[in-house]
Amino acid sequence: MKGLFITFEGGECSGKTTIIQQLCKTLEEMQIPYISTREPGGIDIAEQIRNIILDVNNQKMTEETEALLYAASRMQHLKEKVIPALDAGYIVICDRFLDSSLAYQGYARHLGMESILQINHFALSHLPDLTLFIDVKPDVALKRLENRQKTDRLDLENIQFHNDVYQGYLEVCKLYPDRIIKIDGNVDLDLVCKHCIDKVLDFIKR
Amino acid sequence: MKGLFITFEGGECSGKTTIIQQLCKTLEEMQIPYISTREPGGIDIAEQIRNIILDVNNQKMTEETEALLYAASRMQHLKEKVIPALDAGYIVICDRFLDSSLAYQGYARHLGMESILQINHFALSHLPDLTLFIDVKPDVALKRLENRQKTDRLDLENIQFHNDVYQGYLEVCKLYPDRIIKIDGNVDLDLVCKHCIDKVLDFIKR
Repeated sequence: MKGLFITFEGGECSGKTTIIQQLCKTLEEMQIPYISTREPGGIDIAEQIRNIILDVNNQKMTEETEALLYAASRMQHLKEKVIPALDAGYIVICDRFLDSSLAYQGYARHLGMESILQINHFALSHLPDLTLFIDVKPDVALKRLENRQKTDRLDLENIQFHNDVYQGYLEVCKLYPDRIIKIDGNVDLDLVCKHCIDKVLDFIKR
Repeated sequence: MKGLFITFEGGECSGKTTIIQQLCKTLEEMQIPYISTREPGGIDIAEQIRNIILDVNNQKMTEETEALLYAASRMQHLKEKVIPALDAGYIVICDRFLDSSLAYQGYARHLGMESILQINHFALSHLPDLTLFIDVKPDVALKRLENRQKTDRLDLENIQFHNDVYQGYLEVCKLYPDRIIKIDGNVDLDLVCKHCIDKVLDFIKR
């Protein structure tokens, strides 16, 4: 029996981390076998790649190189961790996947969705079974972001970039209407968690 | 005035290094402005990526990840070094480019030429103006290889892999008959150098 590949998507401060924690708690209580991961997911080679992307000294990195490094890191994590877990029948909960590249590099960095799909060619045979997009309006997210410490190269981006990422996600939702469910993330986080858990459990039961 | 992008391709021990040295000497004597480079070409970010590819500890690296890392390193070298030099009117002599990925990863590692073209999508707008493929039969190359020290992860490949790379190159030549010229590399190296220099000078004059 093959597992299910379920991903969470959203901009900075969309609450994904808390939502995934709550979901995992529920799966654990229900004794549903799952793993929770995120790229690079503790996979050594994927971590090495991620370190190059996030190094603040690498300011000269071109958008194309960044997008290709994300794709490379993704494939290593996918093949070393996600696919074996799915083959073993686990539900795989993953914080971000291809849709992040479509929204961030494809739309916000203007590389184009089509280009991102092409360089992520290998991942297209392993699209998630279900994706929850936590829809938080950019002004709400930015207020939350102000309370966070700026640590890596991506946090240094300006407000326009975060707005563009949000618009990018709306485009991605249009591209995959059957796979992606939009969840209103502007309301109380407990309520967002509840909505997400309900959607995932509904999906697993089907 | 835009420069010309000229690449050299071939398997291990095809003599590319010596040929390029001789060609550069000739261009220098003729006072033709050129640069000579090879991926990662001293570009810091591209070197960091290359180090991950060649690290003997990274035995778990998937073929897809390897191919994507080559594409990432290529884009950084292309945009930081090759394109600026071409824009400044230089002739850019480059040891290996996209065709290497087509032969090595696409054919020999069985990822498929089409997949390699897709993940190298960004580089396709910057294909070389001329490519010289140094055609050395695998058994000739292997005899030369035996005299070399084995140092990196790629040198550990077996004989079959080197044969496959050669077959891959023959396929690449069919794919781009207008761009790639085959040079017989089985004969005396001085003669191979002379043939290559003649072809390049003919092309520059046109």
